[in-house]
Amino acid sequence: MAEIITAEKMAKSMREVSVAEFFEKNRHLLGYENPTKSLITIVKERVDNSLDACDEANILPTIKISMKPTTADRFRIVVEDNGPGVVEEKVPLAFGSLLYGSKFHRLRQSRGTQGIGVSGAILYSQLTTGKPAIVTSSTGKKINVFELSINVANNQPKVILHKRLNNPDKWCGVKIEMEAEGKYIERFQSIPEYLKQTAIANPHAHIIYDGPNGRTDYKRSVNEPPEHPREIKPHPHGIELGILRRMILNTNTKSVIGFLTSDFSRVGKGSADQICKLAKIDCNSNPKKLSTEDSDRLHKAMQMVKLIAPPTNCLSPLKEKTIVEGLKKELQAEFFVSISRSPTVYRGNPFQIEVGLAYGGALAQNETCKLYRFANKVPLLYNQSDCAITEAVTEVDWRRYWLTQSTNALPVGPLAILVHFASVWVPFTSEGKQAIASYPEIIKEIKLALQDAGRKLSKFISQQRRDRERQIRRQIFERYMPEVAESLSKLTEKDKKIILKKLEYMIKNKTLIKEEIEEKKDETDEKEA
Amino acid sequence: MAEIITAEKMAKSMREVSVAEFFEKNRHLLGYENPTKSLITIVKERVDNSLDACDEANILPTIKISMKPTTADRFRIVVEDNGPGVVEEKVPLAFGSLLYGSKFHRLRQSRGTQGIGVSGAILYSQLTTGKPAIVTSSTGKKINVFELSINVANNQPKVILHKRLNNPDKWCGVKIEMEAEGKYIERFQSIPEYLKQTAIANPHAHIIYDGPNGRTDYKRSVNEPPEHPREIKPHPHGIELGILRRMILNTNTKSVIGFLTSDFSRVGKGSADQICKLAKIDCNSNPKKLSTEDSDRLHKAMQMVKLIAPPTNCLSPLKEKTIVEGLKKELQAEFFVSISRSPTVYRGNPFQIEVGLAYGGALAQNETCKLYRFANKVPLLYNQSDCAITEAVTEVDWRRYWLTQSTNALPVGPLAILVHFASVWVPFTSEGKQAIASYPEIIKEIKLALQDAGRKLSKFISQQRRDRERQIRRQIFERYMPEVAESLSKLTEKDKKIILKKLEYMIKNKTLIKEEIEEKKDETDEKEA
Repeated sequence: MAEIITAEKMAKSMREVSVAEFFEKNRHLLGYENPTKSLITIVKERVDNSLDACDEANILPTIKISMKPTTADRFRIVVEDNGPGVVEEKVPLAFGSLLYGSKFHRLRQSRGTQGIGVSGAILYSQLTTGKPAIVTSSTGKKINVFELSINVANNQPKVILHKRLNNPDKWCGVKIEMEAEGKYIERFQSIPEYLKQTAIANPHAHIIYDGPNGRTDYKRSVNEPPEHPREIKPHPHGIELGILRRMILNTNTKSVIGFLTSDFSRVGKGSADQICKLAKIDCNSNPKKLSTEDSDRLHKAMQMVKLIAPPTNCLSPLKEKTIVEGLKKELQAEFFVSISRSPTVYRGNPFQIEVGLAYGGALAQNETCKLYRFANKVPLLYNQSDCAITEAVTEVDWRRYWLTQSTNALPVGPLAILVHFASVWVPFTSEGKQAIASYPEIIKEIKLALQDAGRKLSKFISQQRRDRERQIRRQIFERYMPEVAESLSKLTEKDKKIILKKLEYMIKNKTLIKEEIEEKKDETDEKEA
Repeated sequence: MAEIITAEKMAKSMREVSVAEFFEKNRHLLGYENPTKSLITIVKERVDNSLDACDEANILPTIKISMKPTTADRFRIVVEDNGPGVVEEKVPLAFGSLLYGSKFHRLRQSRGTQGIGVSGAILYSQLTTGKPAIVTSSTGKKINVFELSINVANNQPKVILHKRLNNPDKWCGVKIEMEAEGKYIERFQSIPEYLKQTAIANPHAHIIYDGPNGRTDYKRSVNEPPEHPREIKPHPHGIELGILRRMILNTNTKSVIGFLTSDFSRVGKGSADQICKLAKIDCNSNPKKLSTEDSDRLHKAMQMVKLIAPPTNCLSPLKEKTIVEGLKKELQAEFFVSISRSPTVYRGNPFQIEVGLAYGGALAQNETCKLYRFANKVPLLYNQSDCAITEAVTEVDWRRYWLTQSTNALPVGPLAILVHFASVWVPFTSEGKQAIASYPEIIKEIKLALQDAGRKLSKFISQQRRDRERQIRRQIFERYMPEVAESLSKLTEKDKKIILKKLEYMIKNKTLIKEEIEEKKDETDEKEA
């Protein structure tokens, strides 16, 4: 019989689990569940991080990636950027500790938020090869080289070696080298596919990839860094009670009215007064002295007062032009359209949906459409069936737009769909950040954007069909008209040439009228939709 | 233009993110993405925890749950168990801090492992209602009552109130009260459904549920606690290099041979010697003095030496009898079968697959089969399409067993399928623990178990069909035989009664022979499969 455990014995074995231990054991949660995906995840985390750093510092990113096998199942991965670099004191914590970073507490669109990405890659690398990572960084002064690993037991960096080098060329940036177990492929879900899609959404980046099978250069096609998104304060609508409580505890303001107007966005003196009245709170009282019941009432009142939607300059959309250019660069299609919707809000978080469609040309006729998903300019390669974007695409009735579609399925036809979700907070379904959770507000917005683009596509397709029909009709007439004219001429004893001319005139007018009717019908359909 | 951020500015805003902050913002990862699921998750976390505690202490669990609305969208949830209780000093950390517990570092089957569950529920409760949780616990001595919340900024418990009460009745157990936002339903994915399935897999538990619409009593049907699983040591096969490194750093042994034989399971002196020789390491050297290269070679050698599979008394399967009894209790079917496979191993972790089938009777004829998924005796209600169990079920060719099935879909017919995955480590696809990741070894085992059960089902169905055909055939004969006999009697002038008797005898023999041939054919089919 096995040992029976008492409360006392149980207490002895209780201890804290470090977040590094947790993710080491649950590495599939971070995207390291198989050797192929692991290599992609490492590259993705580093590239996303580099793009974020460059965008924040308003630098046009140039990112060099090298991926070379060291043994049959191990690779050396080096990624170097020209970002602002990381100051010497912060290097160990920034890369040698999970859940450490500058983006988590901020309301502004960025690729990373969790402070897990690159440290997670280093964790995986040391787990599978036992080797430390080499981080080289400079902010323009000395070059710092760190050999570091993560102490998994307490989630703290362990610096094995640190040296400072001279920096005659004033190099700025971060370069990280690691060795990890992996399997390399180049088709479907792969590093080249991730980089290709990254280049579509980030035409201002220059990415040089030196892979096991040679070099690929993803050139910069836009020479301006994207507009810099601003950091915003939380909006009172949709904020959770627990978060409000914590804000009250941490505020530097001295009155409730001050707290409301300076710690939130879109709350002026008038709205703040109104909130206080509704909550039956003296607007000059000290927020830190509010009782539990007071803050409960304040929370309710905040939801009831009408306020302007949160500012949206915290977002950095792709914009319609970039979407079409990106699609054109990658796909040989006949027709392109893009829609950038106005920003809107879910749970107090501003977000914006953008979609693009490419149709016809070299795209495969009888296959399921190709779907490109992006969140904050990062391509999502995995978990397509689990994603709000996919759900929205399947919920649109594509048969309205001349495409084939089974119930609850993606449409079939020579079509590629791009959807970009931009937000200060992306609700990913897991830490691996490959799919967006199904919030109804998000799905609705995506569907509206797709329907809008779909109507434009439908116009193109019906025009294309009409052109084809018209051509066929004309060809038939052209073939038979001389004979008809000949016979008529014999019967009526009139000049064959005149008859032919009149016939041609009649037919031209008739077909034109018919086409006009069809066009009008299309427009009505559209309005009804 | 927004502010451009330099490396220095960035450094200032860098800080640690506590794991509580992380999960507060990402609460959907823990199963709190909508108000309906949130209530289920709270109950599930508490009940799983109670069952684990009782099983460890060899106590027959009696769990009382109360769920009552306090406002339109808030509920007070109280769950009380008769487990061993938690010692006074450990209560705040055990329930007021995430990633704290006794199960994470242990290799033995249990429902919880992460040390997130109940603390996560308390985190959600305080986020949505701002109220602390009330934890009452006793190990049989004094009763401790704690009012506590989680300090999200540092993931530490905050004790608001603590009192000790006398315990004249020697009560033992844990009772936790909390208030949380939620929406209550009773159909499909719901608390009653979770409890019903929990009762199927845990017939030794008595669960009393006092819900918003009345009381349900899930009675105990087995009066013995399940066999106690033992804790095992890691097995050398499949262990990761990084983990081996850490084990070397933390070992109390003085020689490599001692390290191998006492820190691992299934390594005797002979195998240890063999490993050392292969790795070219002196088996008496101090493990802490091994170089990086040494441990690399040791790791490789450990994978190469043949060893007995890990012990499997760390597992606690349901067993075939419990599965059939559980299914019988819930479903009005005609036929039941269960298969408990022998334990096997993935990545060094022992695991065991069990399946049960229920067929016919009151089960719906033309609907997709019902699938019950369990991991370590816990029902999985969400993310069915994302789960290794579902993948395995759809990959089985159910048409072999007389069922309808489209490609890559669940079979259609009056069928319910139960699959139980028991392991020392369940690779869940997210912290919400609702689906199992698709490891090939796991899928293969589930398919083998289902095919085995499928063959038994197929025998039943073909027998059932034969019985029906036989009956129809007999009915036809019985209807026409008197007339045939009559006519024959007229033609031959023989006695009608004798003719009828002979006819009956002939037909009976013929049909029997035909049936025997069919039965033999079935058996051959089976062998081929």
